[in-house]
Amino acid sequence: MRLGEMAERLGCRLEGDGERDVLGVGALEDAGPTDVTFVTDARHLPRLHASRAGAVILPDSLPADRPVLRTGNPYLTLARALAMFHPSEACPAGIHPTAVVSSDACVDPTAWVGPLCVVAPRAAIGARTVLDAQVFVGAEVWIGCDCRVFPQVTLRERTRLGDRVIVHSGAVIGADGFGYARDGARCVKIPQVGRVVLEDDVEIGANAAIDRATLGATRIGRGTKIDNLVQISHNVQVGEDTVIAGQSGIAGSSQVGSRVTFAAQVGVVDHVRIGDNVVVGGQAGVTKEIPPGSIVLGSPAVPHLEFKRQLAATARLPQLRKALRTLEERLRALEARLER
Amino acid sequence: MRLGEMAERLGCRLEGDGERDVLGVGALEDAGPTDVTFVTDARHLPRLHASRAGAVILPDSLPADRPVLRTGNPYLTLARALAMFHPSEACPAGIHPTAVVSSDACVDPTAWVGPLCVVAPRAAIGARTVLDAQVFVGAEVWIGCDCRVFPQVTLRERTRLGDRVIVHSGAVIGADGFGYARDGARCVKIPQVGRVVLEDDVEIGANAAIDRATLGATRIGRGTKIDNLVQISHNVQVGEDTVIAGQSGIAGSSQVGSRVTFAAQVGVVDHVRIGDNVVVGGQAGVTKEIPPGSIVLGSPAVPHLEFKRQLAATARLPQLRKALRTLEERLRALEARLER
Amino acid sequence: MRLGEMAERLGCRLEGDGERDVLGVGALEDAGPTDVTFVTDARHLPRLHASRAGAVILPDSLPADRPVLRTGNPYLTLARALAMFHPSEACPAGIHPTAVVSSDACVDPTAWVGPLCVVAPRAAIGARTVLDAQVFVGAEVWIGCDCRVFPQVTLRERTRLGDRVIVHSGAVIGADGFGYARDGARCVKIPQVGRVVLEDDVEIGANAAIDRATLGATRIGRGTKIDNLVQISHNVQVGEDTVIAGQSGIAGSSQVGSRVTFAAQVGVVDHVRIGDNVVVGGQAGVTKEIPPGSIVLGSPAVPHLEFKRQLAATARLPQLRKALRTLEERLRALEARLER
Repeated sequence: MRLGEMAERLGCRLEGDGERDVLGVGALEDAGPTDVTFVTDARHLPRLHASRAGAVILPDSLPADRPVLRTGNPYLTLARALAMFHPSEACPAGIHPTAVVSSDACVDPTAWVGPLCVVAPRAAIGARTVLDAQVFVGAEVWIGCDCRVFPQVTLRERTRLGDRVIVHSGAVIGADGFGYARDGARCVKIPQVGRVVLEDDVEIGANAAIDRATLGATRIGRGTKIDNLVQISHNVQVGEDTVIAGQSGIAGSSQVGSRVTFAAQVGVVDHVRIGDNVVVGGQAGVTKEIPPGSIVLGSPAVPHLEFKRQLAATARLPQLRKALRTLEERLRALEARLER
Repeated sequence: MRLGEMAERLGCRLEGDGERDVLGVGALEDAGPTDVTFVTDARHLPRLHASRAGAVILPDSLPADRPVLRTGNPYLTLARALAMFHPSEACPAGIHPTAVVSSDACVDPTAWVGPLCVVAPRAAIGARTVLDAQVFVGAEVWIGCDCRVFPQVTLRERTRLGDRVIVHSGAVIGADGFGYARDGARCVKIPQVGRVVLEDDVEIGANAAIDRATLGATRIGRGTKIDNLVQISHNVQVGEDTVIAGQSGIAGSSQVGSRVTFAAQVGVVDHVRIGDNVVVGGQAGVTKEIPPGSIVLGSPAVPHLEFKRQLAATARLPQLRKALRTLEERLRALEARLER
Repeated sequence: MRLGEMAERLGCRLEGDGERDVLGVGALEDAGPTDVTFVTDARHLPRLHASRAGAVILPDSLPADRPVLRTGNPYLTLARALAMFHPSEACPAGIHPTAVVSSDACVDPTAWVGPLCVVAPRAAIGARTVLDAQVFVGAEVWIGCDCRVFPQVTLRERTRLGDRVIVHSGAVIGADGFGYARDGARCVKIPQVGRVVLEDDVEIGANAAIDRATLGATRIGRGTKIDNLVQISHNVQVGEDTVIAGQSGIAGSSQVGSRVTFAAQVGVVDHVRIGDNVVVGGQAGVTKEIPPGSIVLGSPAVPHLEFKRQLAATARLPQLRKALRTLEERLRALEARLER
């Protein structure tokens, strides 16, 4: 592809020689003269100067030293450029002969059920959906169209996936929620008879665990992205276009709004509500309702300005103690003087 | 079933029309006129008033607006009511033709070995135990009666499960403990030749990891419940009826008593002892022995009253600094006055 | 084996009767008269006195009460003694008939591909490497010699493993990194077209997740050991002989040096650099560059002496407030006196 054509398809403004050939997209250190690279931040400009890349995707604010694809949103341009050079593999269709598919299951003829998958009775698998190898699809699971389920995923009975859902390897969708009643000292299991619903365009990371509801549904809203090793507990409701980074956990029945951002290793207690557009910092522990639009940090989580104030004050504690001792001495001197 | 019969079978006091038909149990928002719902806390009473449920499970302390099943322990009553309407599926028996079962393994004729399971030599599987699809059972693993092992569980060699043990999908029981000796800068693996023992009535969550002992056994005591994504390291000993919530981790050789409660994302260092009936708050980091009956919070974990005092004091630090500055000014004024 | 021979093979100094028979290695409480046990720390000496073990591995500093294998490095001696009595099982060779191996894959004739494994096209598996049951090996994955891949591991396409790499059950190597561009409120997936490289002698714990790079490679250096449930994000670079304990997570593009030690549940933000020989305490949150050789604790992580000072100061906050109030009273008294 020529650079000019690439600029046009990506909706970028071209600066420099549009006749140049482009064969791929590469990181700064790996890209060669036929590759496009990208820089999103001024601190990487020295690495750009050292790069052999033939062209670069740049935001409007950064100076260029070679042909440029100008964009207001370099990550989005990068996503599109990568998709251009790395189209999804052609989707195979059919059922691998080693898969164990119930005669009661309904698999669209354009879908693919890979080797050593298990598809239980009354499951339904939509058009062009790909189940990689060794996937488990429980009874009455419904999977929409154009989904990708990577190897060794478990979808427990009655889970629902919308369209274009991606589930990464090792994720377990629909395991029993962690619910017990005490009978004296003993724990009696509360049957978890609800389900999990993953709406359209949801993506779930490797080895994540999304538990089924006790009654009703645990729900992950449209377009929400969940990273590896995240736990979503029973009856949790997550809104749309929310992003939850790795190893975070949300306890039972909590509600998370739309367009919320969780950094990694966040914990949220049960039965709280987190408003829309909230940002929760890494390792924060949310213990109560968070109003929409807040930024919170710390464990227990507090508004970020308060957190920073507390952090600064804690760091100055030794000085504070010293100042107190100085005051005490001055006071003692005054007292002594007045005694005289 | 009629409501009166349900009350009798659940051991509840009936208030209202016992002739009413009940077809199921539902959450407040989903239940219809033929469903029983439940409320455990006064703050949900407005949602009860809006519910279409035909009857409600209520603790003694809450006022009713419709037929009631009265109980001293609403969660236990809920557990029993759900079990009444959702009996476990009939247990199939036998070995699926796609399972790979060693001729040296011993599978009870009433047990079920599902599709694409692997059962290694000298493994033993007890009566009415169900291995769902794609389970791995290593050499010399012993599994008791009435266990349920969900899809894609790995039970490494020589693991022992008692009776009525439940292991959720993706859990790995008996992987090597994380033990190395340093030989200069290099790590030399210490062979992990012990095993894991899960006693009767233990439940292990999805994608949890319970490591085998270096020597001897990592042991999870009778009735203990472990949530998703929890790590139990080599040689850990956990007592009975203990509850460990999601994403917690216990480092090597630590001992946890009976009837202990861990909230989520707790960490425990190696070689410490946590007494019986301890409660550890969410995200706490236990770094030393915790006496029986304590409640601890924070990282490093301290008694909860101390934690709350520290938290309050930290929140008031800016005020403290301000008070100090005020004192300083008053002192300076006094000093100046005495100079004159 | 006789104790004298064992001492010689382990390079230990023998104290006591070298003719004594040794049949195995056992923990203090389990060892019998024909077992060797081990003690690394004086606080376990009372347990040694109570032990029935016939001999003991001891560091130079501890007193003996029975025949001793003296060593400067008791853990290394233990590792070698265990390896002596528990040699790895004889490596089977070949492909189990239920494995699904592409005719385009290249499996060394001395390697073993266990039951119900899947090996995709153009994968290559080296000499004496063992793939346990139900392993997934994606397209163009290269695995070196003498590796061990435990049941239910997923190795996504184009992953590279060096020699003597060990991957534990449930680990997912090469899942897509967590990368999205925002297009308005919506998240657009950035294709993750890089790979994962695990160099020689790396070990990866159960249910860990090592994500593929966006471009280029996520790399784990030679001899590095990673515990269960750890997340390594896209484009992370980890050096050699580093040890990362359970449930830690490293965010995208961060760089970790060689001979670094992470305690458990550590978090590292994206795009930071951690120098060689750094030690990071449990539950720490690394938010910025850490110079080589540092020891850091806390969230956000600070040098350990600073952390301890802050911790102590926080614990004394209630006293500090009290001291301030006392000062205030004394000052008020002085002021009143001067008013008179």
